[in-house]
Amino acid sequence: MNTAAIHHQPESEFAYLYTANKMHVRLRTGRSDIKNVSLINGDPYQLEHSEWFKSTIPMEKYLSTMTHDYWIVETSAPHRRLSYAFQIEGMDGTVLFYGDHGFFPYQESTLKTAGNYFKLPYFHEADRFKAPQWVKETVWYQIFPDRFANGDPTNDPKGTLPWGSQEHPGRDDFYGGDLQGVLDHLDHLVDLGINGLYFCPIFQAASNHKYDTIDYFEIDSAFGDKKLFKKLVEECHRRGIRVMLDAVFNHMGDFSPQWQDVVKNGKASPYASWFHIHNFPVTYTATADFEFSNDITYDTFAFTPHMPKLNTANKEVQDYLLEIARYWIDEFNIDAWRLDVANEVDHRFWRKFHDVCTEAKPDIYILGEIWHSSQRWLQGDEFHGVMNYAFTDAILSYFVHQTIPLNKLVSELNHQLMLYREQTNQIMFNVLDSHDTPRLLTIAKNNKELMKQVLAFTYLQKGVPCLYYGDEYAMDGDGDPDCRKCMVWESEKQDLEMYQFVKNLIAFRKKHQPLLSEGKLRWYEADEQSGIIDFAYEHEGKMLRSIFNTGKQPIYIEKEEILFSARAQSLDEKAIEIAPYGFITSVDTTEGIEQNDKSGSKHSLVARSRRLSSLSTEFSR
Amino acid sequence: MNTAAIHHQPESEFAYLYTANKMHVRLRTGRSDIKNVSLINGDPYQLEHSEWFKSTIPMEKYLSTMTHDYWIVETSAPHRRLSYAFQIEGMDGTVLFYGDHGFFPYQESTLKTAGNYFKLPYFHEADRFKAPQWVKETVWYQIFPDRFANGDPTNDPKGTLPWGSQEHPGRDDFYGGDLQGVLDHLDHLVDLGINGLYFCPIFQAASNHKYDTIDYFEIDSAFGDKKLFKKLVEECHRRGIRVMLDAVFNHMGDFSPQWQDVVKNGKASPYASWFHIHNFPVTYTATADFEFSNDITYDTFAFTPHMPKLNTANKEVQDYLLEIARYWIDEFNIDAWRLDVANEVDHRFWRKFHDVCTEAKPDIYILGEIWHSSQRWLQGDEFHGVMNYAFTDAILSYFVHQTIPLNKLVSELNHQLMLYREQTNQIMFNVLDSHDTPRLLTIAKNNKELMKQVLAFTYLQKGVPCLYYGDEYAMDGDGDPDCRKCMVWESEKQDLEMYQFVKNLIAFRKKHQPLLSEGKLRWYEADEQSGIIDFAYEHEGKMLRSIFNTGKQPIYIEKEEILFSARAQSLDEKAIEIAPYGFITSVDTTEGIEQNDKSGSKHSLVARSRRLSSLSTEFSR
Repeated sequence: MNTAAIHHQPESEFAYLYTANKMHVRLRTGRSDIKNVSLINGDPYQLEHSEWFKSTIPMEKYLSTMTHDYWIVETSAPHRRLSYAFQIEGMDGTVLFYGDHGFFPYQESTLKTAGNYFKLPYFHEADRFKAPQWVKETVWYQIFPDRFANGDPTNDPKGTLPWGSQEHPGRDDFYGGDLQGVLDHLDHLVDLGINGLYFCPIFQAASNHKYDTIDYFEIDSAFGDKKLFKKLVEECHRRGIRVMLDAVFNHMGDFSPQWQDVVKNGKASPYASWFHIHNFPVTYTATADFEFSNDITYDTFAFTPHMPKLNTANKEVQDYLLEIARYWIDEFNIDAWRLDVANEVDHRFWRKFHDVCTEAKPDIYILGEIWHSSQRWLQGDEFHGVMNYAFTDAILSYFVHQTIPLNKLVSELNHQLMLYREQTNQIMFNVLDSHDTPRLLTIAKNNKELMKQVLAFTYLQKGVPCLYYGDEYAMDGDGDPDCRKCMVWESEKQDLEMYQFVKNLIAFRKKHQPLLSEGKLRWYEADEQSGIIDFAYEHEGKMLRSIFNTGKQPIYIEKEEILFSARAQSLDEKAIEIAPYGFITSVDTTEGIEQNDKSGSKHSLVARSRRLSSLSTEFSR
Repeated sequence: MNTAAIHHQPESEFAYLYTANKMHVRLRTGRSDIKNVSLINGDPYQLEHSEWFKSTIPMEKYLSTMTHDYWIVETSAPHRRLSYAFQIEGMDGTVLFYGDHGFFPYQESTLKTAGNYFKLPYFHEADRFKAPQWVKETVWYQIFPDRFANGDPTNDPKGTLPWGSQEHPGRDDFYGGDLQGVLDHLDHLVDLGINGLYFCPIFQAASNHKYDTIDYFEIDSAFGDKKLFKKLVEECHRRGIRVMLDAVFNHMGDFSPQWQDVVKNGKASPYASWFHIHNFPVTYTATADFEFSNDITYDTFAFTPHMPKLNTANKEVQDYLLEIARYWIDEFNIDAWRLDVANEVDHRFWRKFHDVCTEAKPDIYILGEIWHSSQRWLQGDEFHGVMNYAFTDAILSYFVHQTIPLNKLVSELNHQLMLYREQTNQIMFNVLDSHDTPRLLTIAKNNKELMKQVLAFTYLQKGVPCLYYGDEYAMDGDGDPDCRKCMVWESEKQDLEMYQFVKNLIAFRKKHQPLLSEGKLRWYEADEQSGIIDFAYEHEGKMLRSIFNTGKQPIYIEKEEILFSARAQSLDEKAIEIAPYGFITSVDTTEGIEQNDKSGSKHSLVARSRRLSSLSTEFSR
């Protein structure tokens, strides 16, 4: 038995409260190394009295990565406290006890020793990760305000260029997009099926992207005013659309009055301690790159002298930022905050932020911009989710860039799902492109069928998807600033087929969202050679099953009722053909599907494929 | 390569700030599976610009458990943010890149991909685990106040028994011990070398142990009053002794006015929400066991109806308890809080507690009573240390109970040290016995030489030791209540040899404490057959080296200058004999000692033994 590969950590994503009374326990073991795992569990104060260690609960072998298998089980505790350990049977027949002090022979003296057990000492609702219910049900839409729609030309900033006049927008262009433009197009969003709007920053700032905030208490005058924003939120809410704003709390813009005071008064400025300043006066040597200097005397975002980093350990800064957080919830009833460069701000501040926001609005959604593993931020006291680039990167790497093989895709998606609690996974924010990345169509080399396939694959996963404005019309664009083109509103330039596809996909996702949110992921087949990916989300006997053809040849599967598909057709009464870039999705019961048996001895990947032999003469071309 | 055994987790004990600018990085690999590990690291925003991935820092193979090797390295970052990953070379010659998305071939395309790296996004002093400096330098002494000394017979509770009149105290006996008694014996403690006093609860309560608090704002009248306590703290501080009180915040006593109000008024009580009550009125069926009922209608500590559990998620309860926390610091200048049943109280409350206490006294020491793995509480925002039973249990299991072999002892001590940050290990609270366990001498079956050896082994480790009152006079006692005998003050009943031993041990520990605190642990030999344990703590070229004989035969080692020992003697100019239960300790330079080379390819356990062959005719008897 590969004991060195076995891992569990109490009070983490390996052992947590899913609901107030239901606890989830996970165990990681070496791939294909373990035959059976059972949970031994009971009240810490009744170990000797009731000898609960004499019965065990079988654990289910769930997701696998290239190196590990993950075992899961749900349990509870009448007195809301739990001692637990694992009975592990290796493929080699060895049976061991695994607990808080490692491995022991599986025998009564081991089982009777209280100190050998892991613990969840008490089921504290206060410590539980609580996911706002509405987020699961949301399909988001990201708006870069200067480029979505110009609804009010009277507020256009000086030098505004005609809408869409540049094929490739310059870094410093302004196009006059504003909140009135969003209001004017709410019907478009409703028709598409969107029920969450994520706005890039709208507070007063100098640049077109507004990540260099000057005043967090004001709407940028080029976008509108507070009255208009209030109306916009109300109109969104009337249509069942939630509103998320972008909080840039890692740094300020260098035109902010606070920073300008520091520039002017140096050490004597009342704001001197608001930043991380190494030497006064604050200086830097400008370079050809507006966003780079290598001798800045203060900490900044990256190496840009124009974004001095805020000292969020300073009480005044905290009070200032927390007042902002609360103000836009209390006064404008926003539903969510997206936090820019969230990983570079301290945890202590985010915990205060979490408390202030959830007090103001108990079902607020707090979304952090973090590109890497984020366990530390997702314990239930900081964020509800992060921008899930780590998850979607794996999808893009396989489908689009073709830099990883199919088994690595499956491995990485499973790995990401096992980094976080189940209720966290349900509300992770899955973005395929954004204002910070090239557009999906562009990295897909303008292959619209591939783009559709990638969208579908992503929208049929557990986390919540976010559509980047314009993707519904198949807009293209390279990295920033090219991904920030003006939205195409002339219908002759819009790809209406893509629009219809995205609209159908969103409707399908929303209809079957409970299965995706609550369901367990099963991989039925993932075959490098043919490119077939056959997977389902299963919950309480129902399943949403999808089959994707990522190969170069058609694949043939058993006939069934297709609910949503692309590039797939019935050939006769027995078979369906899925062309390259195609997929089908169906809803079914899990009846008749060979499940992992309780012992977990079957590998989930090969439980039952629906594929017909692709070599069959009957269907070969 | 056993990739499944390789583990790292960002922002945990595997990657943390040791000082404001120094970051520690650890990696866990399968035991004896990996030849070399190097750290690849640099600024996240300069990956492409400076190509820092082209140079690496070798990691040192440090401690090993039965299943794993741990690799460590210290690094820093000029711009206080770090991307990092590992270059791993297996014993089989394979070289892999290991980062945030697992394993990749070690090649430039891997190294150039920003998303492949782990991150410490910013070096936040606010998030760093900060250890109060004085704790490392402390040797604690635990006092159970009713049993230490009766300095004032006028405050004896009704029914007080004559001091030491019962060979085995009953569960409900009172003996009149009090604060005046402690004051009277401060010279004893100073002579012994104690510089920290840990008091079991002293607040008003019904029982002799006072864990059933009635009033947290009053000193129990049987112990004295606030004026006397203030004087005691001042007298302690004058002598360089710190004072730690016991906070019982998991539950209250059922005689507390709050609980009595609930008993009387049920749901209408203003305190009804202060507890976890399932049904009103609050009831239970008494059993023969005073501390057990199985139909209690409210949550309690264990199954005792007399200790209703506090609802620490309730704001009023929080305010009440935090006021208590602050009151005894502000008004009486106490130095530390020991938190009873700390694991069963929610994390959110403890974080508030941490903030209130550290604001009141920045170098306060917060010690949690937790018997199991405690990573979640030791991130820097809740506790500074826990009662380290997990660590000392391994020592007792090997030396005293003989339930684990020597390699498991070494494995478990190393495992425990790798669960926590280095600065945490330095201030963990190492207890061999307490009011909750049988006394050391009793479990050692009255073998005083064994008791001395165990004390010495423990005091020569990294964490801070705590002596249970009376152990210095070799008092005995079985489990609670027998371990709570009256302190022996008649000199004819005191074991003065043990006293002198403990005094010398404490002095030795305090003199060489910086080496133990700052040093790296090296195991030179741990041999099951002979029972020799040869280890050292090394720091900046100096080492404190100890050799213990836990076997049944004498062992012989090379001659050297012995600083502190038991049952050891020079035989001639070349050799020293260490008898069973004996040990020697010396201070030396590490010069000439074969260190792990930079590549980490040597196993630390066999670096250089000082043992002479025990079969040598020259010394055999």
